[in-house]
Amino acid sequence: MSETPKASATVNARISPRGGLDILSRDEVARLADASTGGQRDLLRRCALAVLTSGSDSDDPRAAAQRYADFDIEVHQQDRGIKIELRNAPGEAFVEGEIIRGIAENLFAVVRDIVYNANEVSGSGRIDLNTGPGMTEAVFEILRNARVMKSYQEPNLVVCWGGHSINREEYLYTKKVGYELGLRGLDICTGCGPGAMKGPMKGATIAHAKQRHWKPRYIGITEPGIIAAESPNPIVNHLVIMPDIEKRLEAFVRLGHGIIVFPGGVGTAEEILYMLGLLLHPANQDLPFPLILTGPKASAAYFEQIDQFLQLTLGEQGRSRYRIIVDDPAAVAKEMRAGLKKVREHRLGEHDAFFFNWSLTIPFEFQQPFAPTHRAMAELNLRRDQPLHLLAADLRRAFSGIVAGNVKEEGMREIEKHGPFRIDGDRDIMRALDALLRAFVEQRRMKIAGTYEPCYQVVGD
Amino acid sequence: MSETPKASATVNARISPRGGLDILSRDEVARLADASTGGQRDLLRRCALAVLTSGSDSDDPRAAAQRYADFDIEVHQQDRGIKIELRNAPGEAFVEGEIIRGIAENLFAVVRDIVYNANEVSGSGRIDLNTGPGMTEAVFEILRNARVMKSYQEPNLVVCWGGHSINREEYLYTKKVGYELGLRGLDICTGCGPGAMKGPMKGATIAHAKQRHWKPRYIGITEPGIIAAESPNPIVNHLVIMPDIEKRLEAFVRLGHGIIVFPGGVGTAEEILYMLGLLLHPANQDLPFPLILTGPKASAAYFEQIDQFLQLTLGEQGRSRYRIIVDDPAAVAKEMRAGLKKVREHRLGEHDAFFFNWSLTIPFEFQQPFAPTHRAMAELNLRRDQPLHLLAADLRRAFSGIVAGNVKEEGMREIEKHGPFRIDGDRDIMRALDALLRAFVEQRRMKIAGTYEPCYQVVGD
Amino acid sequence: MSETPKASATVNARISPRGGLDILSRDEVARLADASTGGQRDLLRRCALAVLTSGSDSDDPRAAAQRYADFDIEVHQQDRGIKIELRNAPGEAFVEGEIIRGIAENLFAVVRDIVYNANEVSGSGRIDLNTGPGMTEAVFEILRNARVMKSYQEPNLVVCWGGHSINREEYLYTKKVGYELGLRGLDICTGCGPGAMKGPMKGATIAHAKQRHWKPRYIGITEPGIIAAESPNPIVNHLVIMPDIEKRLEAFVRLGHGIIVFPGGVGTAEEILYMLGLLLHPANQDLPFPLILTGPKASAAYFEQIDQFLQLTLGEQGRSRYRIIVDDPAAVAKEMRAGLKKVREHRLGEHDAFFFNWSLTIPFEFQQPFAPTHRAMAELNLRRDQPLHLLAADLRRAFSGIVAGNVKEEGMREIEKHGPFRIDGDRDIMRALDALLRAFVEQRRMKIAGTYEPCYQVVGD
Amino acid sequence: MSETPKASATVNARISPRGGLDILSRDEVARLADASTGGQRDLLRRCALAVLTSGSDSDDPRAAAQRYADFDIEVHQQDRGIKIELRNAPGEAFVEGEIIRGIAENLFAVVRDIVYNANEVSGSGRIDLNTGPGMTEAVFEILRNARVMKSYQEPNLVVCWGGHSINREEYLYTKKVGYELGLRGLDICTGCGPGAMKGPMKGATIAHAKQRHWKPRYIGITEPGIIAAESPNPIVNHLVIMPDIEKRLEAFVRLGHGIIVFPGGVGTAEEILYMLGLLLHPANQDLPFPLILTGPKASAAYFEQIDQFLQLTLGEQGRSRYRIIVDDPAAVAKEMRAGLKKVREHRLGEHDAFFFNWSLTIPFEFQQPFAPTHRAMAELNLRRDQPLHLLAADLRRAFSGIVAGNVKEEGMREIEKHGPFRIDGDRDIMRALDALLRAFVEQRRMKIAGTYEPCYQVVGD
Repeated sequence: MSETPKASATVNARISPRGGLDILSRDEVARLADASTGGQRDLLRRCALAVLTSGSDSDDPRAAAQRYADFDIEVHQQDRGIKIELRNAPGEAFVEGEIIRGIAENLFAVVRDIVYNANEVSGSGRIDLNTGPGMTEAVFEILRNARVMKSYQEPNLVVCWGGHSINREEYLYTKKVGYELGLRGLDICTGCGPGAMKGPMKGATIAHAKQRHWKPRYIGITEPGIIAAESPNPIVNHLVIMPDIEKRLEAFVRLGHGIIVFPGGVGTAEEILYMLGLLLHPANQDLPFPLILTGPKASAAYFEQIDQFLQLTLGEQGRSRYRIIVDDPAAVAKEMRAGLKKVREHRLGEHDAFFFNWSLTIPFEFQQPFAPTHRAMAELNLRRDQPLHLLAADLRRAFSGIVAGNVKEEGMREIEKHGPFRIDGDRDIMRALDALLRAFVEQRRMKIAGTYEPCYQVVGD
Repeated sequence: MSETPKASATVNARISPRGGLDILSRDEVARLADASTGGQRDLLRRCALAVLTSGSDSDDPRAAAQRYADFDIEVHQQDRGIKIELRNAPGEAFVEGEIIRGIAENLFAVVRDIVYNANEVSGSGRIDLNTGPGMTEAVFEILRNARVMKSYQEPNLVVCWGGHSINREEYLYTKKVGYELGLRGLDICTGCGPGAMKGPMKGATIAHAKQRHWKPRYIGITEPGIIAAESPNPIVNHLVIMPDIEKRLEAFVRLGHGIIVFPGGVGTAEEILYMLGLLLHPANQDLPFPLILTGPKASAAYFEQIDQFLQLTLGEQGRSRYRIIVDDPAAVAKEMRAGLKKVREHRLGEHDAFFFNWSLTIPFEFQQPFAPTHRAMAELNLRRDQPLHLLAADLRRAFSGIVAGNVKEEGMREIEKHGPFRIDGDRDIMRALDALLRAFVEQRRMKIAGTYEPCYQVVGD
Repeated sequence: MSETPKASATVNARISPRGGLDILSRDEVARLADASTGGQRDLLRRCALAVLTSGSDSDDPRAAAQRYADFDIEVHQQDRGIKIELRNAPGEAFVEGEIIRGIAENLFAVVRDIVYNANEVSGSGRIDLNTGPGMTEAVFEILRNARVMKSYQEPNLVVCWGGHSINREEYLYTKKVGYELGLRGLDICTGCGPGAMKGPMKGATIAHAKQRHWKPRYIGITEPGIIAAESPNPIVNHLVIMPDIEKRLEAFVRLGHGIIVFPGGVGTAEEILYMLGLLLHPANQDLPFPLILTGPKASAAYFEQIDQFLQLTLGEQGRSRYRIIVDDPAAVAKEMRAGLKKVREHRLGEHDAFFFNWSLTIPFEFQQPFAPTHRAMAELNLRRDQPLHLLAADLRRAFSGIVAGNVKEEGMREIEKHGPFRIDGDRDIMRALDALLRAFVEQRRMKIAGTYEPCYQVVGD
Repeated sequence: MSETPKASATVNARISPRGGLDILSRDEVARLADASTGGQRDLLRRCALAVLTSGSDSDDPRAAAQRYADFDIEVHQQDRGIKIELRNAPGEAFVEGEIIRGIAENLFAVVRDIVYNANEVSGSGRIDLNTGPGMTEAVFEILRNARVMKSYQEPNLVVCWGGHSINREEYLYTKKVGYELGLRGLDICTGCGPGAMKGPMKGATIAHAKQRHWKPRYIGITEPGIIAAESPNPIVNHLVIMPDIEKRLEAFVRLGHGIIVFPGGVGTAEEILYMLGLLLHPANQDLPFPLILTGPKASAAYFEQIDQFLQLTLGEQGRSRYRIIVDDPAAVAKEMRAGLKKVREHRLGEHDAFFFNWSLTIPFEFQQPFAPTHRAMAELNLRRDQPLHLLAADLRRAFSGIVAGNVKEEGMREIEKHGPFRIDGDRDIMRALDALLRAFVEQRRMKIAGTYEPCYQVVGD
């Protein structure tokens, strides 16, 4: 809805810190300034530009990177603390020379997290990032430093996942769901890009205004590789930049109390499998965690196919951990509220915190990236002769690898060089996977040029 | 954006008062209960239904009146004060059995104002409604009782006028203007119906969220005859029901610090003339009061024609009191902010309140309704041989009468009986008026069946 | 504890209004200014001086009246509302030229109430002061206008009565009781003079700080005839000036949820009888209302004698409505808290407000002053052959008359002229009354020059 | 003013954390619990008992240690975080079974600081405590962790020093000064024991209530060796426990914006010399820092003698850094406010923080304890042939050593063994020192049994 000034308009400005960066020691100020001019400079510049162009119609920070090629940001040690100096910054972030307050807050969040990740998490030696508990500690510390956890807040944080380039009907649907969530006093957490990341927050904003819910949380959790493509909407009033994709995923499931999945591309399907891999883990068997898949009527097919695939592979047990609701925003919100009630009771029963899901077991493998080499793919076990959560985990990896082989540059090169991946799996599972991917292609959820050519082969066929 | 439950869904509920009706004497409680079952009952029922259906897609309370024919409301003396009892209330105002908070607040505003107007303003004998100052006192008392005036608030309240049945492009434009106003920290006051009454508030809500402006005012001022047709959006967080159209107009210009006029029908044109009649009054000559007419490019013609008419009739002096801006929401907001700065300086200079425009002279005639009889029309003076503000005032009346003669039931009957109105005016003014009205017809801003047949005749032609 | 500047130091100042007088109509401003220069001027001047000298060591506004003979106050219509102009005001109310905020607030409370009482209560004709309900309405309206009632506040307001010229040990005891009340989160309401009016508030202030009770209420209720003698301590953060003694008494028992009586003079004894007269009324039989009489060990005799007198006259039923606790501040607070719990339950059960004791029946005679003429005294019935509450009421009157005959100027003149009052009463009651009064004389609680000479005679002896 | 329950009354209770210990990781909870049962247990127990007995009349935690010999405290990992479990805790900290809120807050401050000091400051290796900047960093981190620094707070924090066992007149004087500071909106920081540590806070509490200053800070800074002797009054709403005396001194001068010194013993005189040693350092020459010595008329001699001694040793330059005001609380507050204004301007000019006095140079020697051995004493240079700040520093040490030789156990033993200290100094300085100490003895500010026998000898005499 924003009125973008002409592209050429740029602004030079100095911004004072807000919340969280205001009481610093001289050393910290110096380290901040150093980081902003040293190794973190490019990262900082890239993230800052994404935040500064977040109000633009295009929502495409890559275009922004070209348009504002001479943009620069520096953190200065001055005036009783720090100041952020912006040069040639996008004029659209300013109103008559003054930066939009929400954008300024997100800008300081960027500085805060990048420096914290560099100095306190990776750089300090305090946290052992080679262990599962160390990873979890890092996630906790970053979230605490970002002050997104509230000690007395009842479980009310709904994570919304889904595609960022969904169609208009799907986008309007995400707004409606956000509106119904907002009417019920629920807060929203997303990956903070456009599409399914933005719609629920916009809808909730209107509903929160109607319900006079004055301190809503719109939490956006992103990471350096994504922020450039998915610029945080300034409705986001808590922006957190996690160091990588896996910690971002962990942040979602530790911080959020329930998850809603809107239609998306293959990435979304992969996220569903990640979540089911966790929920089917024996240690998480009794852990309530509402997981709802929903979309408008026209998108029903997307979830139907996923549902069939999941039934085939993970059976009734797998299906018991999620619910699909088609074209009924109020029912989604109702179901979520009922689920959150169970989460609340469970945490009370376990004397566990409301603000962080300590009880959720996340195996170490889930905390680490999967690199889809031919060897790694060959070692996957896609057969039913194993525990369901392991099958789910390997399915996610297979999925991830196949997608890479189909559309990602590096994966495609690997396939060209070494031929199709060889996968060890039950035949019907392989067929279902194949069918699912073809359906995505048809629904234009996966960008494939020409005919779809499977990049895998089932061993022992 | 709301998800309306099926039409048949109704709810019975008891609502506790919020802010303003919570500390009442036993007598007042009794009088409230009496009023709600006595003379004010129908009025109360009608207004309450409008508030309760305000979230619906249709925004048409007349349809609602039929759909919820057995809806009823009563104010009960009970439980340490009063309770509002609703029977067969529209389910859309509720979320899982609980009323939407903003709707509950507006419901209590309805009770508050209807009873206050009946008991304290018309009924008490305290205020002499037969004098200008008495009228102004009544307006002040109602607004104070509704707690919409803030003593330490800088001048930042922008009144938005315009049609309630504007086209989609015009509606989106009002949202954009609201957004730009909101970015600049300005609060919004409208007549609280759909169209140009709703767009600016929605736009401002998103901008206020971005600017972290947590206590915004969305003031809706309505009156019993209009509320049934223009149901208050629940974004409205201060609803005021004035006793009649003239007091509503006075409330707008006393409470607001500046006015933006969007395209509308003839009513909107009449409002512009009302405002110019005030601003051209010699006593208001030095009073700053920003008045901006604006619309999207496609609606440029509407304001061009009005502008030409005003230039012809009120000359450069008339034109100096308003500005037309086409298709530039940011410029509108900028201009308004500059205007409000002058209002602020003027009030400081005059030691006048920020919260009520005491300095504005409103002649007694403006405070009273104009009844367009043949005699009254004949007595109008539409010639240039008089002070401009008197010409503006009579133009407004002529306008009002012609519109009545063309489209209002009673007016049309008069014309049928007694022939066309005879008006004493300069020929070119008459022609311009005629042209303007025809243009409105062409633009479908006036519902006329068949060919347009002028209902007036210029005397001495 | 205040550091008074030299007596001669006076200050001229203009004060801006705070809370409640900030949104006024032009008419109200004019009426305020008129009242301050017209009929209410002397009253206003007297009350204002009491407030302005409230921090002084002597706490004797009569001395102040002489010291600041040329002090003046005017309410001006200016600068967007009103300003209070002070001339030759006591310097002790100022800190380096700026008025102490609490004193400024109380000053505006004085203006607010004096003008409200004059314009809206006695002057408006809206309230019929010749009926009981009218009286109660007046009390309610004045308290509401002063904003001392809170709608969602649990019953926690303890009224403290007692002498203003008590000895040091008794004063320290009142502080200790206030401290224990404060530790339990209870708010304090007193007559706002020195002695037993001040001690509980001071004690509670320290306890409230320890308990982090940040919004405590220290309500002072006074009236024009008393404020000159009992200047409101600036700890008082809600000052109310009732029009006369009877409305002040009614304000105490309608607003407060329980009463603690410290040692005092005969006035205090009279207040106890007033309270018992109400509580023994059949209509109030089931109304819980904690009434505790307490003092340090050295003052035990005072309450013992009262207790004996009450037992003799009102029997066990009378004694069941109060409790005497000697030298145990914590027990007093505990008992009060238990009593307030019952009040809360009762109000919930009756659907009655927490903020105003509507259920308490106050007979019309209690709302009117008693003039102790010979005739009125002769008509008193001090015999046991009647309902207890009538006996209590007539005892209070007898008491009041005897005190007047003994020490008040007018009463003594009457006695000189017409001889002793003749009272119709049971002999043992008369004797007990006599004994009680003699005890007060001995304890120096009544200023009698020479030997105590009874001013009454029992009829039929 | 508190009402202590009988000594034997003890309470078992579980307390939930307040502010600052509510969002902890599982590791932190475990470390907290460990620390409370491991190495820090005795320290924790001792400090907790001091806090829990702070409301008692005696204010003597040593007596408390005996009275509550079986008191115990444990930090438990439970119920979504931690709980403090108290066994056999002094009943005086509770009101009808519930702990006084201010005491609970201070209890959690004790846990917070003891664990932070152990785990993060001494134990973590993050801070190099062998350098001056490292020391300062530690002070900063502890204060920040305790959240006593406010980013937007104007300089208004007055540190009050003075004896804890002053006489009643002096105590009342400290209350009056606190009252005058409070009237001017100033906050108070003390060592949080009785006497001069408590009086200013009590006085300020009443004044803050009168000025409606609702968020006052009463900061108490203590350390483990002192807290047992100087129990924190629960008016203290920010309690900080520094690891040792030197960091406590640094916390005072970095956090406070000005210092007031009341009469005290030799320790107070030593603090004055510490402060002058800092202020006379060339690097601090232009640093504004109000230092006011004040007491009632009867205590004038104390400051006169100190003044004479300082004039003799540090000359006019030394005297220019402090001001003595006798018996005029308002003048003290006025002077302080003027001084704080200069501090504010200076910080603005230097772009320095308001919340921490980074610009103050504290030489490394000042940050380390002085051990008064014969050798260290012999190496002191008490001659005028050196920069003033070095003389001041050595005077402080001499002072410290002589006091130790006179009254401290270890020092007295040293003297018995090796004879009097030999000091190299100007004869008149030695004489003045001698005279000053004798005066303290006479004024009963130093507990000396028998005749005063100097423990030093001037070299070269």
